[in-house]
Amino acid sequence: MDEKRIRVGLVGFGTVGTGVARLICEEGDAIAEKTGVRLELACVVDVDTTTPRPVRLPDGVLTNDIHRLLADESITVGVELVGGTGVARTIQLDMLGAGKDVVTANKALLAEHGAELYRVARRRSRCIAFEASCAGGIPIIAAIRTGLAANNIRAMYGIVNGTCNYILSSMSAKDEEFAAALAQAQQRGFAEADPTLDITGGDSAHKLAILASMAFGYEISLDDIFVRGIDGIAKEDIRYGREMGYCLKLLAIGLKNEQGKVSLRVHPSFIAADCSLARVDGSFNAISIFGSAVGETLYYGRGAGMMPTASAVVADILDVALGNSRTTFEHLRLKPREEVVPLIEDINDSVSRFYIRVMAQDVPGVVACYGRILGDHQISISGALQHEGRGPDNTVPVVITTHRTQERNMAAALAELARSELFAGQPVCIRIEDIPEDRDV
Amino acid sequence: MDEKRIRVGLVGFGTVGTGVARLICEEGDAIAEKTGVRLELACVVDVDTTTPRPVRLPDGVLTNDIHRLLADESITVGVELVGGTGVARTIQLDMLGAGKDVVTANKALLAEHGAELYRVARRRSRCIAFEASCAGGIPIIAAIRTGLAANNIRAMYGIVNGTCNYILSSMSAKDEEFAAALAQAQQRGFAEADPTLDITGGDSAHKLAILASMAFGYEISLDDIFVRGIDGIAKEDIRYGREMGYCLKLLAIGLKNEQGKVSLRVHPSFIAADCSLARVDGSFNAISIFGSAVGETLYYGRGAGMMPTASAVVADILDVALGNSRTTFEHLRLKPREEVVPLIEDINDSVSRFYIRVMAQDVPGVVACYGRILGDHQISISGALQHEGRGPDNTVPVVITTHRTQERNMAAALAELARSELFAGQPVCIRIEDIPEDRDV
Repeated sequence: MDEKRIRVGLVGFGTVGTGVARLICEEGDAIAEKTGVRLELACVVDVDTTTPRPVRLPDGVLTNDIHRLLADESITVGVELVGGTGVARTIQLDMLGAGKDVVTANKALLAEHGAELYRVARRRSRCIAFEASCAGGIPIIAAIRTGLAANNIRAMYGIVNGTCNYILSSMSAKDEEFAAALAQAQQRGFAEADPTLDITGGDSAHKLAILASMAFGYEISLDDIFVRGIDGIAKEDIRYGREMGYCLKLLAIGLKNEQGKVSLRVHPSFIAADCSLARVDGSFNAISIFGSAVGETLYYGRGAGMMPTASAVVADILDVALGNSRTTFEHLRLKPREEVVPLIEDINDSVSRFYIRVMAQDVPGVVACYGRILGDHQISISGALQHEGRGPDNTVPVVITTHRTQERNMAAALAELARSELFAGQPVCIRIEDIPEDRDV
Repeated sequence: MDEKRIRVGLVGFGTVGTGVARLICEEGDAIAEKTGVRLELACVVDVDTTTPRPVRLPDGVLTNDIHRLLADESITVGVELVGGTGVARTIQLDMLGAGKDVVTANKALLAEHGAELYRVARRRSRCIAFEASCAGGIPIIAAIRTGLAANNIRAMYGIVNGTCNYILSSMSAKDEEFAAALAQAQQRGFAEADPTLDITGGDSAHKLAILASMAFGYEISLDDIFVRGIDGIAKEDIRYGREMGYCLKLLAIGLKNEQGKVSLRVHPSFIAADCSLARVDGSFNAISIFGSAVGETLYYGRGAGMMPTASAVVADILDVALGNSRTTFEHLRLKPREEVVPLIEDINDSVSRFYIRVMAQDVPGVVACYGRILGDHQISISGALQHEGRGPDNTVPVVITTHRTQERNMAAALAELARSELFAGQPVCIRIEDIPEDRDV
């Protein structure tokens, strides 16, 4: 069979764009030999055409004029690697409008405007492929959409932000404060100069919106997701959690309960120190998915970086070239927003276990007090930890873990603890996720 | 967009066949809602039409006459779940001959006759989809072929036989002999009544032949694979290995060296006790793949069983229904056998580290003796373990680990150790695999 030739136009010549150009220019022969598809980099568009990048483009390929890409009918695949939700949206719409299929790594844009962009693509019989938007080089979107298509997906737990995982791993391994761990992550290139989107959980929420919409078949809005970041985490809580058998991770969680309601959450989570996700260290990503037929499957790898993300972008370009992306995209069914809203669980109704730390005055009656407050709100204590000795301002840290309870009960109990004179300041509250272990029976 | 209807014919109504029938009959609505593809179970063929199975088929679907399936032109997908390499081959050829695409979980058949079957399918413009042939419900074939298509795959290490992993996990956790662990695995349904194909490594070799041919783009024959099973493993060696920081796994290994030569091996392997694959317990499977762009990715899940395997079969049926399997299959390039033979590394040339146990007479000169023998063969010792006390027949176990050396050097040294009067019987020799760890730098 003859080789298929595909001309690709790339917009955004930053880190990932450079990686994509490198794969196409340097590995093109090997890729063609293995897949029968010959990729041609027809055009690379960026406002900055002068800064040297570690790849040698063919002459005349680099331009700052996107119209060259849009107007060239021989370019059938447009790759948007600009990022953000402003100009990137226009670029994708223009590429679709010019009859090109779109490949992108832009999770923010898809999380915010995915439904609109998918509709436009469909109307024009084009597709948007976005494997690179979640978990970098791990082929997780394909696994969910195709590999697990026969499954009713019941739960997913993901470590999908390498920056946060790097910071939490450092805090844990070196008993380091958040600020120090962040500074070191920035220095070593694992956190951006402005890390806000990562550490507040926003980036994980973007990825959860995309992954959960594929897994559950819903149009999911960012508003449906409860989000807490890691910026307030104290190293003491990581240490106390470890003493109680837990490891702290920022998890992106999608859970379908027995009534079909879906809980979508991103927050710091204590998980059993011996479970698979607890062993994912540093900047790596991993996603554990529970399907009705398959049980647990887990996917692990690098979630970011030049070449891992480029690997996913080029895989998508090849899949688009073969026509498979378009077919998969055409057959993607997402329940429209109006139908989805009642299916999303209110965070106040959500049930989980909790870790609480209060700074107790060193006086009689403390245990009775928190025992009464929690009991009054129907919260049952599963463990407690109080080391002998004094803390700051003559207070001592008391750590309590609870059995499963509704978020609203916990919120009320926390408010009452905060008001009590026996405890100083606001209590610390971190959710405990009991990830089911799929084991031999 | 309208629902696409696909009529499926199934041959082989055993465990996996029953699982596939259950997914199609019981989850058909959910699958159609999510994918836009409506699966119809047109026909289930088995010689045994009377034994009750835990699924209710529509009336008239079950038959012992395969010609009903072959002659029905409305059936476009034929699923072969008979297993084995005899009648199954005929069935697949007949289905292709009748113009049907084929979906199968039959690793033995593909490992032995894959090249022939692929050629027939291609000649008839049909495809063979075989996600279920390796690692059950883990979508590993798609990950290699599509997700990692932009990568030069440098290495794969797989735990791909759940029976062996279950047995080795039990031996390790309970300090149990092989025979006892096997008997218990059989009792609990994790090993067949005749476990030969599993414990000799044959089943892992079948899967490696398929996975490595996808990863490296070669037609691979079983003859290219060096195979050793776990049937001779003594619990002492698992224990000594653990003392030295290792965990014993049956690994399927595909490695490409810098000259482009590929080493294909299935054998018991000591791996670092803290690496990802060491933590894969019981009947689970996991495959770690190192790609030039993506770095390490790892895939974990159930490798066998009714519903996990059925999950992969139905995923393949859906992919065939969408037409994607056929496109992927058409573009699959495998280097023909003649070109491949010189690329496969001879086992005697292969280089690895080794664990050796000799039963030494308790007399002076033992250390000098093994030191001299290993040194004479250019083998450098990396560790040694000799507990005080006596073993059987007044001998003591001496455990030695080596640095990297060629297989032929080790074979010569082992022969000399066996001949020496200072050591009783044959030395035990187990390969040590230093799986690279992809870490943050």
